Amino acid sequence: MNRYRLEIEFDGTDYVGWQRQPNGPTIQATLEEAVQEMLAERAVPTAAGRTDSGVHAMAMTCHLDLARLIDPERLRAGLNHFLQTKRIAVLRVRAVSDDFHARFSAISRCYRYRILNRRAQPTLTSGQCWHVAQALDAKLMHEAGQILVGHHDFTSFRASECQAKSPIKTVNSLQIDRHGEEILMDIEAPSFLHHQVRNIIGTLKLVGNGARPTSFIQEALQARHRSAAGPTAPPQGLYFVQARYQTDAEGRS
Amino acid sequence: MNRYRLEIEFDGTDYVGWQRQPNGPTIQATLEEAVQEMLAERAVPTAAGRTDSGVHAMAMTCHLDLARLIDPERLRAGLNHFLQTKRIAVLRVRAVSDDFHARFSAISRCYRYRILNRRAQPTLTSGQCWHVAQALDAKLMHEAGQILVGHHDFTSFRASECQAKSPIKTVNSLQIDRHGEEILMDIEAPSFLHHQVRNIIGTLKLVGNGARPTSFIQEALQARHRSAAGPTAPPQGLYFVQARYQTDAEGRS
Repeated sequence: MNRYRLEIEFDGTDYVGWQRQPNGPTIQATLEEAVQEMLAERAVPTAAGRTDSGVHAMAMTCHLDLARLIDPERLRAGLNHFLQTKRIAVLRVRAVSDDFHARFSAISRCYRYRILNRRAQPTLTSGQCWHVAQALDAKLMHEAGQILVGHHDFTSFRASECQAKSPIKTVNSLQIDRHGEEILMDIEAPSFLHHQVRNIIGTLKLVGNGARPTSFIQEALQARHRSAAGPTAPPQGLYFVQARYQTDAEGRS
Repeated sequence: MNRYRLEIEFDGTDYVGWQRQPNGPTIQATLEEAVQEMLAERAVPTAAGRTDSGVHAMAMTCHLDLARLIDPERLRAGLNHFLQTKRIAVLRVRAVSDDFHARFSAISRCYRYRILNRRAQPTLTSGQCWHVAQALDAKLMHEAGQILVGHHDFTSFRASECQAKSPIKTVNSLQIDRHGEEILMDIEAPSFLHHQVRNIIGTLKLVGNGARPTSFIQEALQARHRSAAGPTAPPQGLYFVQARYQTDAEGRS
């Protein structure tokens, strides 16, 4: 078999998430169908991370194994042809060795959360941001968020249906900045718990609008109980930005 | 009557343009219906510029006259309530004197044209940019475009159905820059001919991809014939950015 690494951009609005399931279209199944249509081969793509319904990706890494040996650029162009109307695009393809695994080889994942912070509802970015009408203090949110950087028990920020064995995770960095009417949170970690990013931003929003003091984040973390933190922010503001790999850092392919 | 000035943001994808017409939903008619629903008053909004089907706006200025005297913030919030699902948002409202006219008082209009310049099709910006797969040289496009700045006969860049009395227009500025995979053109003029912006970018694209030399722009301009310039770029890349008013420059309202 020949292994290919793909970077995928998608608008998750009309999908029930990455992973194939019976209750609606998924990114994985749509990609699988494009491979089938192009090459008449069945190949199940494996992604760096699963995304929920409505969550987007700027560059989701995945890999797939093909019986056929094919020029990476031809594979990219061919898949995009069959994905033309699907709001999924293959940005890059390269042939990789069998020891590359999109999920297990990844050393970290980067997510972005996008808030439209103004009174009027979104129009051009509808379905692509969380609309928060109350004024938010992005600087205060950034400062409060720094307590979450490092190695912690994130039980308070974990979805009840989360299947991870341990609630202990390490957040490498968390950066919140205002860009005009938008507030962006960029967060990187080796891996995340289910809904961790959306629960973090949903909690930091309560500090940003003054509903809770900065100390609320520390208290929420220490409580180790989901109800101690804020609500889960909606999926449409979340973007899988990229996965990082040791091989990339070393300049190998 | 009481006159109100509104700044409107909209996603033009599902509209046949600004102006009320029988063949589909328009921004003007949708706004008019929101006024009707909110205040049970009929008021026809007048805009700084008409936009074509599929064209967007970041801040279209318009004015409307109401029999009722109403707090501008209440008007803004009320209209947005009725526009919630319409991909139209009222960003700002203020009471203005009767001598303010959104169209006739405007001293210039600013448009942006957005190109996604990469091989893969758009996903997150689908319907909001012109996808050009061939590599474009933004710097060359900018340089070539400078010949269009100033007072010229723009017959070559004018739609055949254009109703303006004269093809002579003045372009105040034209700036083209690359931002990663995107190329943005910002153009300002006191007023524009029909399809002028889309015909300019459609022509500059031919210089950007090397199909024509830089001198092509000068030749097209001098020819004073539509067929001498390039094709009309698609509407979904075009944004009405803002109209400028003397009163704003002077800090009066």
